Amino acid sequence: MERPGLAPTEDFRPMERPQMDVRRRVAIERVSPEIDGGRFAIKRVVGENVVVEADIFADGHDQLACRILYWQGTEREPQSSSPMVPLVNDRWQGEFRVTKIGTYRYTVEGWTDRFKTWRDDLSKRIAAAQDVQVELLIGAELIADTAKRAADADSELLREWARRLHESAEKESGESIALEEELLPLMERYPDPNLATRYEKELRITVDRPKARFSAWYEIFPRSCSPEAGHHGTLQDCETWLPYIASMGFDVVYLTPIHPIGSTHRKGKNNSVVAESDDVGSPWAIGSAEGGHKSIHPQLGTLQDFRQFVSRVEEHGLEVALDIAFQCSPDHPYADEHPEWFRKRPDGAIQYAENPPKKYQDIYPLNFETADTLALWDELKSVFQFWIDQGVRIFRVDNPHTKPLSFWEWVIGEIKGQHPEVIFLAEAFTRPHVMLRLAKIGFSQSYTYFSWRNTKQELTEYFTELTQTDVREYFRANLWPATPDILPQFLQVGGRAAFMIRLVLAAMLGANYGIYGPAFELCENAALAPGSEEFLYSEKYEIKHRDLNAEESLRDLISRVNKIRKDNPALQSDRRLRFHETDNPLLLCFSKSTDDLSNVIVVVVNLDSFNKQSGWVNLDLSSLGLGTDHAFQVHDLLSDGRFLWQGPRNYVELTPGNLPAHVLRVLPQDSYGAEF
Amino acid sequence: MERPGLAPTEDFRPMERPQMDVRRRVAIERVSPEIDGGRFAIKRVVGENVVVEADIFADGHDQLACRILYWQGTEREPQSSSPMVPLVNDRWQGEFRVTKIGTYRYTVEGWTDRFKTWRDDLSKRIAAAQDVQVELLIGAELIADTAKRAADADSELLREWARRLHESAEKESGESIALEEELLPLMERYPDPNLATRYEKELRITVDRPKARFSAWYEIFPRSCSPEAGHHGTLQDCETWLPYIASMGFDVVYLTPIHPIGSTHRKGKNNSVVAESDDVGSPWAIGSAEGGHKSIHPQLGTLQDFRQFVSRVEEHGLEVALDIAFQCSPDHPYADEHPEWFRKRPDGAIQYAENPPKKYQDIYPLNFETADTLALWDELKSVFQFWIDQGVRIFRVDNPHTKPLSFWEWVIGEIKGQHPEVIFLAEAFTRPHVMLRLAKIGFSQSYTYFSWRNTKQELTEYFTELTQTDVREYFRANLWPATPDILPQFLQVGGRAAFMIRLVLAAMLGANYGIYGPAFELCENAALAPGSEEFLYSEKYEIKHRDLNAEESLRDLISRVNKIRKDNPALQSDRRLRFHETDNPLLLCFSKSTDDLSNVIVVVVNLDSFNKQSGWVNLDLSSLGLGTDHAFQVHDLLSDGRFLWQGPRNYVELTPGNLPAHVLRVLPQDSYGAEF
Repeated sequence: MERPGLAPTEDFRPMERPQMDVRRRVAIERVSPEIDGGRFAIKRVVGENVVVEADIFADGHDQLACRILYWQGTEREPQSSSPMVPLVNDRWQGEFRVTKIGTYRYTVEGWTDRFKTWRDDLSKRIAAAQDVQVELLIGAELIADTAKRAADADSELLREWARRLHESAEKESGESIALEEELLPLMERYPDPNLATRYEKELRITVDRPKARFSAWYEIFPRSCSPEAGHHGTLQDCETWLPYIASMGFDVVYLTPIHPIGSTHRKGKNNSVVAESDDVGSPWAIGSAEGGHKSIHPQLGTLQDFRQFVSRVEEHGLEVALDIAFQCSPDHPYADEHPEWFRKRPDGAIQYAENPPKKYQDIYPLNFETADTLALWDELKSVFQFWIDQGVRIFRVDNPHTKPLSFWEWVIGEIKGQHPEVIFLAEAFTRPHVMLRLAKIGFSQSYTYFSWRNTKQELTEYFTELTQTDVREYFRANLWPATPDILPQFLQVGGRAAFMIRLVLAAMLGANYGIYGPAFELCENAALAPGSEEFLYSEKYEIKHRDLNAEESLRDLISRVNKIRKDNPALQSDRRLRFHETDNPLLLCFSKSTDDLSNVIVVVVNLDSFNKQSGWVNLDLSSLGLGTDHAFQVHDLLSDGRFLWQGPRNYVELTPGNLPAHVLRVLPQDSYGAEF
Repeated sequence: MERPGLAPTEDFRPMERPQMDVRRRVAIERVSPEIDGGRFAIKRVVGENVVVEADIFADGHDQLACRILYWQGTEREPQSSSPMVPLVNDRWQGEFRVTKIGTYRYTVEGWTDRFKTWRDDLSKRIAAAQDVQVELLIGAELIADTAKRAADADSELLREWARRLHESAEKESGESIALEEELLPLMERYPDPNLATRYEKELRITVDRPKARFSAWYEIFPRSCSPEAGHHGTLQDCETWLPYIASMGFDVVYLTPIHPIGSTHRKGKNNSVVAESDDVGSPWAIGSAEGGHKSIHPQLGTLQDFRQFVSRVEEHGLEVALDIAFQCSPDHPYADEHPEWFRKRPDGAIQYAENPPKKYQDIYPLNFETADTLALWDELKSVFQFWIDQGVRIFRVDNPHTKPLSFWEWVIGEIKGQHPEVIFLAEAFTRPHVMLRLAKIGFSQSYTYFSWRNTKQELTEYFTELTQTDVREYFRANLWPATPDILPQFLQVGGRAAFMIRLVLAAMLGANYGIYGPAFELCENAALAPGSEEFLYSEKYEIKHRDLNAEESLRDLISRVNKIRKDNPALQSDRRLRFHETDNPLLLCFSKSTDDLSNVIVVVVNLDSFNKQSGWVNLDLSSLGLGTDHAFQVHDLLSDGRFLWQGPRNYVELTPGNLPAHVLRVLPQDSYGAEF
């Protein structure tokens, strides 16, 4: 099979001697983190550390020296290095901090350290009372050689050292000159580049702004924001909701699509295939005579209104996220202007969406296998660019798993190359490898299977995989208890307590989480039909009018949860999530902490929305920085209660109707007396 | 730090659209086997299969088709392919056989299969009783398109099919034409190359001759072969040993170094630093006025004698292995001719070998960090070539871990490029990563830690690592119960039974194994000192004269063991080694089998050389191809005893003084009645 255009693989070039310095004796293997042999970048946010490990060794018994090299993507060569130290079994470790948004690169370098080897050998010889005169002369040569590589002042210093050592080689003082404390670090500053092996790969880091790692999202249908029932809400109406959303402590206001909606084959209420004349249609059926992906639905307002909304959102300390759904209604201008971007049926019509035998005649999928793909890619990129120009920096991408992976890798690379601050959330609910691949190729955050993980075993296994394996290097989970498409059974049957349980789990397990509001805080849980996860009278097909001050609202709990998240850095990352045993399968216990253990949170959740559950948790105290037999105070940040716990085993009892979870801050052991 | 000469890394080229066909939608990940991201070749012998797996997936829900591409190193492009089938969770698997010695390459290719997708969808539509007229027209177009890519006869066939389908699209018969059995395989023969993603790496296989995987080695000091005590043996004397060695069933006669031995600082008996005038010196102190690595010690004979010896060895169905030890005595011609290949001390002398504070003044190590390294590399390569020209095809390389890894990768690549039949055995006893790296860079076989692995836990863990992880793809263990350098404690204290135990373990756990003879079969176990692993009166420093017919000789047991190995293909590979539980920590039970389970061997060894041990083994029957509740016969190939076993739990009892092991061939379940 012919392979036009794809450049040949070059990493299998046979080793030709002229291409390397044959004196390099160090081998570097199993560098970590490294995703798929370096094919993909790892992710960090500004201010985070990157801990790098590698197996580094050479023939023989010489001492090695190793370091990390790292640099920003704008530089061509390493600009900084960080030392590595040996762990056990030829494994080395070092770390560095990323301080700027954008791309970084890192690699590893190791070399045989002749001076350190010589110095250690010298100590052994001296201990064995051997004559070391010749050895001292060898050392003097090594120092003089290094002087040639050293910077001016150091060079002078080393030349002098070599001279002194050479002169006193026959005297007792030679040994002490050779072993002087200041000499070793000075020598190590100037390794011989001809002996240094650099790892053959340059590994990449995508460094995002902190919100990529820590964010609370609030999803709304703008047309439901009208203060008057039965009216189509506008972007200006949405502004009146901002104090409410901000007061709950959210960071991101995510708008479902705001574009003109098609009328051909428009869906009616409850996804009916026949719409009434007053049905508003699904915001995801994008495009009409009034415009497509770069237009605003006239009933919502104007582009001017949108820009003003973006400003207002910022004034409330929030940020807008826009929904990008690359699909078209039959009325989208693309259908006329670019029929070549769609698949044509033999009868001349454009092919509508299908999942045979189901048909979705209100949607035309784009045909990414068209001969004109490059023009299509460029146009879709320009959609992102258009909204960036209106001030948007966060995109929630609808169904990315039904468009080519190579397109996303390209378009995200292009956009982030110009705007590294942009955050992309992948709304993919599909097979595991596709979910992970979307994260690898650049999505900043990802929806997860959280919505369907309810039991202790399911939650423990899934979040251990996401946070304690290589997956954590590139996949940032964003946890949603429900979405307009997904009303999980657990919420349908579990009542208000179920919403509380899933809220606490999402917000505590995930540094990124979101809710579909106000449906969520009002505990809306009527399903279209038994066994269905569709909402009854789904907001996807009609305008909603709700009482935000309803008594059953979880608004206060949500506000408390978001404040706890903001006050406790332990909850702002998922890397140090760990689960602790409980003796009751309906009690889930986990902890998060900062790297330095200065902030430690233990969460215990009753997974049963109907019954009180009690039992013993068995904490892994060392992971919390606690000694095994001391008492320590825990402060329940949800209830404001305080408990004195002791050792690993402690009793908990949680009543779902009241508060189904403890969110316990562990207070420093020496402070509980004062604070209690 | 400057990096002269090393080409830039190219696998991080940003994805540029013109370099790929943007319609390729398939992603390929986690290809297995793949060693260190494809940096190193896997190993096979002629006739073996390579099972390849990969995660292969695309966006959306289209059907995929996948295959392995493979070709010999002499070809530039894939010449063959093998289909892959889906396992679970987007994992695909296929296999192919390597039939020629040398290098192979393989990679993986996957594409969206439009026709299969269309065909499956059509079936769903038909089942839902939908009108499929337009669908049939779409199918006719697909077939007509494919006809353009197809070979002459097939093209004609497909054009006709398209025409028939198009014509009858409106009739009932259209559906049956579309689903005709012959059409699908015909269509699958001509995938659209523009849609096919090829994995970005071409992975390598080093294909060796079968002896690289299955061999029994017998190590001798040629100078000890004289029929007369006190005489220096010759190569002609060695010929008289060949019937003895062949009768025991060995494949390889490994000669310790046969070169002239230096006299400066020659070591005396028991490694004494002062030699007596009649001391013969260590064969590893290579080089004298009579020559170096390309010369034969005059007392052993001439080059003519050596070539004759090689012929005689072949006549006995054996093969010579030569010891290659790249180090020099102070009298080696290199010291005069190439002083630049050694490190010079400030006093002008050449630096002798050291492990401070220990000094080895009889050895000059080569200095691989010399400026003249390339000339040194070329000379050392010519040593291999010299002995290849004399008929040698197997080299046992002494202490490779004290010479640069890059040198070995280069020299093995050079030699095997010309002589792919050459086998290199790495005699490295050093840190784990260095051991493994030597195998990765090309050594065909490797010494192991077997000599120091005695307990059930040690043996189980170590051989599980070697045979059930990726290590097995490149590291071929060669197991030695003892060597001239290593007389393990277990043999020192355990008497004859200990030798029997270690023989059976080496020969059964390892498809490659070797003994240091005749010391081993004569159960020589006197150590130089308590705690030492050196032999007393080591053959390294003096000539030995032994009675090969001594009563205590293990010759008969060794013959039986080697015959069992040759008769049973299960024992000729390590890939299907698995351990089975026993309820006695001193009983080790393991099995080996052929891939098709036609030959299954269960070995039970009493690890206690002093006491009878008994207990129950608990077999994993499914791994042996046995049902859970049937009786089956096992035939002890060592004792010729037969037992009727039933189910997983069976009783064993082994007396070390008698036979400390069962080597049980599992007979087919339906044959035991006839054979018993």
